Amino acid sequence: MSSFETKATIRSFGGKLFKLTHPSPTTTTPMALNLYLPPAALTTPPSRVPVLIYLSGLTCTPDNCTEKGFFQSPASRLGLAVLYPDTSPRGLDIPGSKDAYDFGEAASFYLDATVPPYSAAYKMETYLTSELPSLLFSDAEFGPYLDGDRVSITGHSMGGHGALTLYLRHPGMYQSCSAFAPIVNPTECAWGVKAFRGYLGKEREAWKEHDAAELVRRLERGKELRVLVDQGKGDQFYKEGQLRTEELEFAVAVAGVKGVEVRYQEGYDHSYFFMATFSEEHVEFAAKALGLL
Amino acid sequence: MSSFETKATIRSFGGKLFKLTHPSPTTTTPMALNLYLPPAALTTPPSRVPVLIYLSGLTCTPDNCTEKGFFQSPASRLGLAVLYPDTSPRGLDIPGSKDAYDFGEAASFYLDATVPPYSAAYKMETYLTSELPSLLFSDAEFGPYLDGDRVSITGHSMGGHGALTLYLRHPGMYQSCSAFAPIVNPTECAWGVKAFRGYLGKEREAWKEHDAAELVRRLERGKELRVLVDQGKGDQFYKEGQLRTEELEFAVAVAGVKGVEVRYQEGYDHSYFFMATFSEEHVEFAAKALGLL
Repeated sequence: MSSFETKATIRSFGGKLFKLTHPSPTTTTPMALNLYLPPAALTTPPSRVPVLIYLSGLTCTPDNCTEKGFFQSPASRLGLAVLYPDTSPRGLDIPGSKDAYDFGEAASFYLDATVPPYSAAYKMETYLTSELPSLLFSDAEFGPYLDGDRVSITGHSMGGHGALTLYLRHPGMYQSCSAFAPIVNPTECAWGVKAFRGYLGKEREAWKEHDAAELVRRLERGKELRVLVDQGKGDQFYKEGQLRTEELEFAVAVAGVKGVEVRYQEGYDHSYFFMATFSEEHVEFAAKALGLL
Repeated sequence: MSSFETKATIRSFGGKLFKLTHPSPTTTTPMALNLYLPPAALTTPPSRVPVLIYLSGLTCTPDNCTEKGFFQSPASRLGLAVLYPDTSPRGLDIPGSKDAYDFGEAASFYLDATVPPYSAAYKMETYLTSELPSLLFSDAEFGPYLDGDRVSITGHSMGGHGALTLYLRHPGMYQSCSAFAPIVNPTECAWGVKAFRGYLGKEREAWKEHDAAELVRRLERGKELRVLVDQGKGDQFYKEGQLRTEELEFAVAVAGVKGVEVRYQEGYDHSYFFMATFSEEHVEFAAKALGLL
């Protein structure tokens, strides 16, 4: 008996895409997710394939990247599963949680909120690093296709922040991390300050625990990471100072950390057109870390 | 001075995607379109590249396939431009034209309507085969990148019907035609009967001029076409009898026509997930006909 209800099964690039939902004790809500299984997994008996988790940006559901990010093509070719979780709990009656695109629903920032009323349900870090993998990798229906010991993480914008901070906060959990136009220094940008104040309270020291640039600064000199970041140079949010990509590079240099590549892509914006252009390279980056290449 | 107003310029797969609009005397409305120019065109001075026209299905704008169809990746690699026109005129005050997903706005069936009130503006065949190519291929801004003598056409569902019928009705205009889940025999399906009655009147003989299976039947024996069709076997509209794919195969066999390949894809539905899976092969098919491969 699966813990997940299958809302749709869709053939894609020779594999199968599942639209799933499950009740989450962590978030107290139903949680939606999409799961892509490549042909390499769909053998008889099933084969366990490595998993790439993709965290979406502000306003998104699991569907946006599934439709527009174009991860399925390289994942099919290389033999990775792709897991697309949602961006927050949904359907809670928290006043104000649906009023803004950058706070509340679809804007969890992938942390465990500590301030009421969000602290009761906005526990996305626990959900993503504990509940969901436990449930999925041991699931009667989907578990046999997935290798829970070989997992990488990636994400876009707020999801890039999520990928980087979960990777840095949970050493050993993910074999690699990549990000498209991530918010790398949220303690110093408008989006991050608003979110952190609402989810974590006024104490700025607590915010730093969820700031990729701050977390990199604390690493021991010579530490080997496995991180790839792409940033479009035509990205309006980059230009507005929401992403602060250089702060990640600066932190890497100051801390003397290795294995972080930051690439600036001339003319690219913040959209899925940017992501789709480079998603194949990010899947290949994960595939290398996961022993597939 | 360009005839087109550029609403957005977006970097994609090393090339540029333009969201354009222009006033159309043929449809009496502004018409939206997207144009993708591959890196091979964006040289100094500009290089003329062949063009693949993509016609969308019911309910779509030029944006849906641009975001989800994934033509830009192979078009970039192979050096084709991709032109995404709209599915009908928009913004007209025709009573009932916005009430149904399968008739009126976004459901033109790519023909010239002969029945009032649609006959005044729903002239998509003239727009697509005459006005738009004349305007675009000689345009001061975009013309220098496009080779109007090397054009192929493709489409999805209603757009597959459009691609097939325009290809068959205008010999020599397109070097090849391909289609994803096309409506091949609209005179005999609910969608087609509704549309043809509304746009062409009650006379069924007039409908046959816009029915791919009927048009194939009239071809001379041994005629060489260049057509590729993919049809998902899990497609709900195929199962409901809206697409009638076998009628195209039957017409090809009866007429003794060559060069038409119809492929049935196990388990695939009617969605962009199906299209994206096979779009690279369709772009390669066009590229061969256009002399690029």
